[in-house]
Amino acid sequence: MAGSSFGKQLVMTTWGESHGAGIGVVVDGCQAGLPVSEKYIQTYLDRRKPGGRDFATPRQEADRVRILSGVFEGRTTGTPISMMIENTSQRSGDYGNLATTYRPGHADYGYDAKYGFRDYRGGGRSSGRETAGRVAAGAIAARILEAYGIRVQAYVSAVGHVRPDPKRFDPLNPDPEVIAANALSMPDGEAAAEAAEYLRKLMEEQDSSGSEVTCIVTGVPAGIGEPVFDKLDAVLGQAIFSIGAVKAVEIGDGTAVVEARGSENNDSFYMKDGAVAKRTNHAGGILGGISDGSEIVIRASFKPTPSIFREQQTVNSSGEDVALSIRGRHDPVIGPRAAVVVETMTAFAVADLLLRGQSSRFDGDPGMNDRI
Amino acid sequence: MAGSSFGKQLVMTTWGESHGAGIGVVVDGCQAGLPVSEKYIQTYLDRRKPGGRDFATPRQEADRVRILSGVFEGRTTGTPISMMIENTSQRSGDYGNLATTYRPGHADYGYDAKYGFRDYRGGGRSSGRETAGRVAAGAIAARILEAYGIRVQAYVSAVGHVRPDPKRFDPLNPDPEVIAANALSMPDGEAAAEAAEYLRKLMEEQDSSGSEVTCIVTGVPAGIGEPVFDKLDAVLGQAIFSIGAVKAVEIGDGTAVVEARGSENNDSFYMKDGAVAKRTNHAGGILGGISDGSEIVIRASFKPTPSIFREQQTVNSSGEDVALSIRGRHDPVIGPRAAVVVETMTAFAVADLLLRGQSSRFDGDPGMNDRI
Amino acid sequence: MAGSSFGKQLVMTTWGESHGAGIGVVVDGCQAGLPVSEKYIQTYLDRRKPGGRDFATPRQEADRVRILSGVFEGRTTGTPISMMIENTSQRSGDYGNLATTYRPGHADYGYDAKYGFRDYRGGGRSSGRETAGRVAAGAIAARILEAYGIRVQAYVSAVGHVRPDPKRFDPLNPDPEVIAANALSMPDGEAAAEAAEYLRKLMEEQDSSGSEVTCIVTGVPAGIGEPVFDKLDAVLGQAIFSIGAVKAVEIGDGTAVVEARGSENNDSFYMKDGAVAKRTNHAGGILGGISDGSEIVIRASFKPTPSIFREQQTVNSSGEDVALSIRGRHDPVIGPRAAVVVETMTAFAVADLLLRGQSSRFDGDPGMNDRI
Amino acid sequence: MAGSSFGKQLVMTTWGESHGAGIGVVVDGCQAGLPVSEKYIQTYLDRRKPGGRDFATPRQEADRVRILSGVFEGRTTGTPISMMIENTSQRSGDYGNLATTYRPGHADYGYDAKYGFRDYRGGGRSSGRETAGRVAAGAIAARILEAYGIRVQAYVSAVGHVRPDPKRFDPLNPDPEVIAANALSMPDGEAAAEAAEYLRKLMEEQDSSGSEVTCIVTGVPAGIGEPVFDKLDAVLGQAIFSIGAVKAVEIGDGTAVVEARGSENNDSFYMKDGAVAKRTNHAGGILGGISDGSEIVIRASFKPTPSIFREQQTVNSSGEDVALSIRGRHDPVIGPRAAVVVETMTAFAVADLLLRGQSSRFDGDPGMNDRI
Repeated sequence: MAGSSFGKQLVMTTWGESHGAGIGVVVDGCQAGLPVSEKYIQTYLDRRKPGGRDFATPRQEADRVRILSGVFEGRTTGTPISMMIENTSQRSGDYGNLATTYRPGHADYGYDAKYGFRDYRGGGRSSGRETAGRVAAGAIAARILEAYGIRVQAYVSAVGHVRPDPKRFDPLNPDPEVIAANALSMPDGEAAAEAAEYLRKLMEEQDSSGSEVTCIVTGVPAGIGEPVFDKLDAVLGQAIFSIGAVKAVEIGDGTAVVEARGSENNDSFYMKDGAVAKRTNHAGGILGGISDGSEIVIRASFKPTPSIFREQQTVNSSGEDVALSIRGRHDPVIGPRAAVVVETMTAFAVADLLLRGQSSRFDGDPGMNDRI
Repeated sequence: MAGSSFGKQLVMTTWGESHGAGIGVVVDGCQAGLPVSEKYIQTYLDRRKPGGRDFATPRQEADRVRILSGVFEGRTTGTPISMMIENTSQRSGDYGNLATTYRPGHADYGYDAKYGFRDYRGGGRSSGRETAGRVAAGAIAARILEAYGIRVQAYVSAVGHVRPDPKRFDPLNPDPEVIAANALSMPDGEAAAEAAEYLRKLMEEQDSSGSEVTCIVTGVPAGIGEPVFDKLDAVLGQAIFSIGAVKAVEIGDGTAVVEARGSENNDSFYMKDGAVAKRTNHAGGILGGISDGSEIVIRASFKPTPSIFREQQTVNSSGEDVALSIRGRHDPVIGPRAAVVVETMTAFAVADLLLRGQSSRFDGDPGMNDRI
Repeated sequence: MAGSSFGKQLVMTTWGESHGAGIGVVVDGCQAGLPVSEKYIQTYLDRRKPGGRDFATPRQEADRVRILSGVFEGRTTGTPISMMIENTSQRSGDYGNLATTYRPGHADYGYDAKYGFRDYRGGGRSSGRETAGRVAAGAIAARILEAYGIRVQAYVSAVGHVRPDPKRFDPLNPDPEVIAANALSMPDGEAAAEAAEYLRKLMEEQDSSGSEVTCIVTGVPAGIGEPVFDKLDAVLGQAIFSIGAVKAVEIGDGTAVVEARGSENNDSFYMKDGAVAKRTNHAGGILGGISDGSEIVIRASFKPTPSIFREQQTVNSSGEDVALSIRGRHDPVIGPRAAVVVETMTAFAVADLLLRGQSSRFDGDPGMNDRI
Repeated sequence: MAGSSFGKQLVMTTWGESHGAGIGVVVDGCQAGLPVSEKYIQTYLDRRKPGGRDFATPRQEADRVRILSGVFEGRTTGTPISMMIENTSQRSGDYGNLATTYRPGHADYGYDAKYGFRDYRGGGRSSGRETAGRVAAGAIAARILEAYGIRVQAYVSAVGHVRPDPKRFDPLNPDPEVIAANALSMPDGEAAAEAAEYLRKLMEEQDSSGSEVTCIVTGVPAGIGEPVFDKLDAVLGQAIFSIGAVKAVEIGDGTAVVEARGSENNDSFYMKDGAVAKRTNHAGGILGGISDGSEIVIRASFKPTPSIFREQQTVNSSGEDVALSIRGRHDPVIGPRAAVVVETMTAFAVADLLLRGQSSRFDGDPGMNDRI
């Protein structure tokens, strides 16, 4: 059974490889009547497209999204929304020498082991380009959430050892304009400058850096998540780990809970203006797999870009040890372009669970009370 | 849409609350002809049951599993395997004062927000007791894996700051007998003794500790995992985050990749005895969401047990601030009993993807080659 | 991938064989707060149990349902509802000679071909007894529908050539008391008496009869059904064909449409008391896979009971031609006991689609109108 | 939850409306290495396209399929196969007067009731044009089946009262060339001529005819189908009922079983050339939901085309009674163009269950026999 679909009430199915006719996504289960346009979707895609930023690959792909179905007179019709982005900038020749060589840190060997046959051009289906479809789908999910007052914002919280300084930004409420204003999607311009310097040095050394993306969801009401396997954190875990290069996902305090004590880690509830609130948010907004009304806090650890220009030792499909020198266009760090992918996958997961939860309660008919 | 099922080819559906008639699980999609017995399943359940260990709650539940269907003359029939564990030791009175009070760190508030109605006895569906069904289902998955030469082993790799010493055990090949021989499921007896001392101190202070569980899967062939949303790490991410109290999941180097460089993090391939091998395993056995033939390495961070005996501030369902003193039976740390849950959820996820992958390749009929 | 689950928002998973410990069902996705009791479920099960009627097998199984989880203080909690019916009357000896012989008209040969191994006692998983779990699950669905004013009623509309006379009953509104008052679940006592006479004659001849069940759903609002694969009629088609021995499913005029003309078959809409109504209902309440507000009319054709006492020619698992004489307890007709199965499967399918449809529309926020 | 996907191991997701940019389908789960080309897919699409036949609408749509992903160097890669057919011949003006009027026999009213908003052009998503995506997906399924020696063939077995004469063709083995040679997809040229005459008369009377399609699957091994809800007939039932205008689905003897006796209806098994065979095939190749090795026989009853040119009474979205005269291009009968849809949906359902069944059996390791 294949795995190209995500979500249960709101479902996206992505398709496409790095070097085929294009890539795309079908979103099924979107409510009818929601305002959606190509222009709106494009604002999300523009955040992940290459070419626009200092540390992104110099390819100049237009990445223009086209809505092929499911939207009529500016609104969703409730039927599947098909969106496509044509592949326009393909230089297959760049990849020719990779047809038979397994790049370290890449999925090449796994794909061959699994399928016995692969489209080696540009990483094929395992290319980061596949995420463009997710971003388009997640933009629709974000619009659904917007109608419920829920907002999702991701940012780069580490490039190697360089982290934004909490004295210069609010980790739970970062400034979208600052994030958009620097090439590294960081919420602190000074840290971004320092990280840029670090990346330049790594590029000189034909190397790459790991990174971390933090995602904040505000406005989620308490009660979202489906016990026991589709808990909010479990679905987010799948959503974020499904993004290439993610090696860790944390909710709230994440790995720090290992050394914490219960008396420190428990968040006290209290009444605030007539509503249930928490004095702290170590839990990252999720308790027992269900949202507790606080901000949801997710962190994803991205490994360094595996495509580096240094010569590396590897093997080929004939079972020979070979030396490999990768050429072409590669970002020195993954997080800055992946931030919008984390954001939209998070939006999609939350929107799906929000819709799924709409039938959690029976809106009791008093006449039913006397039933056996 | 509810979330009580996990898996797509091999599917488990769990049911039951802490204080109902019992808890159970239905496993659908298990191959016919596999040897399975209650005695075998019981060996797994005995590893999570309370009462048998120093730092587990003093309840004495028999936790006897009964196979109700799907096994005939000692073998699976291919039809659903229903298993049940009766609840025998219920002291509902212990929990009476929790009917209307939301415990910090627990799902009580979320359940009420979601369902408007909840079985408050012993945490109801959000009780750790729910995992007994998963363990029984995972034992069947482990038997499937055994037939393919795949072995799964979990152990506690941290209780608070206390960690086993890599000089005293092999992190990729821990000794099951050592793990079974101490009350904390640690692969290093000395560390276990130190951790026990730490827990005793915390219990005196009416407090609890966080913990970490590591899980190793050996013998997985390259090629397991379904791009792009059901990648091996994505499915494991969902599986492990669906276990209560998990706040982080890491694969391979996990969060350490953030500060790593590509030249360090990439694992070189080389030929070893005619097979593809890797000189390092920073990737934890998964590249691009597909197994690469190395050991799979997963780590889960468990928060400290939220039920502590200290008085805590919280609110009740009438919207009043109240002080809460929890009584009853509670482990001071979650990892030691949860290790077998991590192990069986991992086994289930891997077995499901293994079976799903069996139709990845067309076993080509040469006659097809001439088709248009 | 196994097939023991049905439904997407409201999901039932059945388990159990004719001769194991029992049979059961887990219902996941039921709204919280719905009044449900064992006594209520039992009223449905009593309609399918053997022993109570003239033309049912003389087994005296209690078929007592036990709710194991998901109901607290008389109401559903939103968590999985597990129900079990113990097998109490098993005479395995009756079936011993069938361990290796494939009964004509039965699934024996198919199960062996598929699984290579089977529980031959009483038909194992392919026994009609499996439907008891469905009936229990469908009773819960019927309760959900009741809260929306939707009612489902099935009845036997043919035993062989004997059909109820439309002059003596209303096909769209049959009298439940008449149906309950005769052993054949027919809505016309005179026809029931005639059918009983026909069956007695067949039994003397060691033979059995085919039958037809009609099911009427009233009160379904327009707009239920999910294009394009989960249309209301498509889901009903799967639901009813999944019942053993069904060889045809018809909606509305059914097979009669083949010889009809468009001018006859189209149902004219008109306004009636301010609501859209139809002058005829050839469509059986479903147009384009979506309910149109009229009564839904479904018919299922059941083949004659394949277990007949006459000697039959067949083969055994050693590949030998053999003569077979079936003994034991077998109904001479399937429809009368299957009517409640058709009714509850229909209820389950409609309830699932009703819940799924609750997020079809965006309840527009006027502020969204200015969005790009 | 939306319903635009079909299949579990092999999954198709269709998208598109009659008058958007195009229609398409994504096929996920196809094995890697299968030879597939646009030219091959086109041969299937050409059988349903309008314009090529006497009794099809005179639109001249090219219906050219384009494979956008998942095929590399003439073979499937195991990743999603996206296919698109652009809408090239749209005369929206033809449908303008239908924006607010509910056509009798159509889904217009249901869509409005469900979604509150609809793309009224050409029937939108409920247009028969949606099935082009299914045909493309089913062509891939047919290629999978071909590799296993399984062949699927549909034909028109009735246009109104006109049926092919069994003396002039073999119902279980009709001649594809005869079927392709007449405009009505009938396996008997004389009957086709008679049916053509009947249709001409109806068209003069501004009326339309019902029809029946029969589908035969040969070469299916015994053992295909997943008890209990995804039985082969249950999945076929859903597949065929999901095609617009189908009002009845029959397997084998279908509705005729109601008046049959068990002694007539049971098919005797016997050994033939060392294999299990059946002397008759009343069951239509399916027993207990599992294939029995005989030909699978399915019949679908199609209602008359609801779009007729006679004036009809109906209502509009303002709740007024109105008279409606439909103009435009409409076939006088549905079966001839729908036959290939029945054929490809059948192929898809059988291929999905074939792949799903590949893990039904444990290929026993003798060493497992001693396990507890």
